[in-house]
Amino acid sequence: MSDVLQQLTAILAERRGADPESSYVASLHDKGLNKILEKVGEEATEVILAAKDAGKGGDRQALAAEVADLLFHNMVLLSHLDMSIDDVLAVLEQRFGTSGHEEKASRSAS
Amino acid sequence: MSDVLQQLTAILAERRGADPESSYVASLHDKGLNKILEKVGEEATEVILAAKDAGKGGDRQALAAEVADLLFHNMVLLSHLDMSIDDVLAVLEQRFGTSGHEEKASRSAS
Amino acid sequence: MSDVLQQLTAILAERRGADPESSYVASLHDKGLNKILEKVGEEATEVILAAKDAGKGGDRQALAAEVADLLFHNMVLLSHLDMSIDDVLAVLEQRFGTSGHEEKASRSAS
Amino acid sequence: MSDVLQQLTAILAERRGADPESSYVASLHDKGLNKILEKVGEEATEVILAAKDAGKGGDRQALAAEVADLLFHNMVLLSHLDMSIDDVLAVLEQRFGTSGHEEKASRSAS
Repeated sequence: MSDVLQQLTAILAERRGADPESSYVASLHDKGLNKILEKVGEEATEVILAAKDAGKGGDRQALAAEVADLLFHNMVLLSHLDMSIDDVLAVLEQRFGTSGHEEKASRSAS
Repeated sequence: MSDVLQQLTAILAERRGADPESSYVASLHDKGLNKILEKVGEEATEVILAAKDAGKGGDRQALAAEVADLLFHNMVLLSHLDMSIDDVLAVLEQRFGTSGHEEKASRSAS
Repeated sequence: MSDVLQQLTAILAERRGADPESSYVASLHDKGLNKILEKVGEEATEVILAAKDAGKGGDRQALAAEVADLLFHNMVLLSHLDMSIDDVLAVLEQRFGTSGHEEKASRSAS
Repeated sequence: MSDVLQQLTAILAERRGADPESSYVASLHDKGLNKILEKVGEEATEVILAAKDAGKGGDRQALAAEVADLLFHNMVLLSHLDMSIDDVLAVLEQRFGTSGHEEKASRSAS
């Protein structure tokens, strides 16, 4: 399943150079960093709202779709700065062997 | 590399039932949905700030760490609602074969 | 100067019942609480971005406009829930006589 | 009632130069712009959560307190950049005579 992130990384790299008129991803790069970060902020808000609704017996599929939107726009952000989700997964791989509180402490210390 | 998300999913499931005194993850579940969503909002803000700093020639590793924090807390959120990152990856897998603008349109329509 | 908040409160109350086709405020009420909160989240993100740009020698007037947008949409939110900015100013009036750290402590304790 | 914003502006100006050990406001200035913006992001998230809870028959006073926190930290932000809420109220005063949709359009055009 998680190969999808590698495939999506390749697609995002390809679309970065596409025509902004025909590619949503290219249009985000064309508008620049602030526009991409506005989308990250919007999608985070939508995750919060969908989670509150899901938490009251609402639609869990809607929450999955909002987290997917948030992850997608974070991946566009990483691509915009010549990085990729691999940089993020490397951080998680380094961290998650330690216990939660230890991990929290190590983050605070960094 | 992306096996890390599957391993982290297993770890989060295990820690959900741990002692809140000794596990950061268990303490988040104990404090409840609003606390977890506060963390999602905080981490999204920190991604935005780190990206602005990285975009001005700043620290890219700091941005990777903030996106990792955001992804981690989204995974805690999913776990809290008896879901997992697999639900999110399934959404991305269904979407990303289409072009950006088509994909955007299909999201708006859903 | 601050009479403007009282005038805006009256205007928002009047527009809440207007035609959603011709009034932006009425259209927000018509779309409901989640739409209003999406706007609050969006405007908060835009404040953060404008402040980062202003802080690097950028446009201070753009920041003033973004904070105005955020305050405006918070006032729409309050109106949507049959409250007003007066409820918020009353909280500030009650608080700000105490020192910052005392005030912070009292908030944390509440 | 709205004189409170003028009084708070004066208090914030005074505390900006206070000892960070004894003043919460001074401690925020001391930590810098990113810390102040993290607080703005946190408080915006807390407004959203409190509004969702208030909208389901929850505590309206809690929402008033969260909007007050958000406004307070926006005022600290303005002070940090040598601005004040007067700059924001001037924007609102200039805008709110026009209808909502006209006002929205004028913002989009700017």
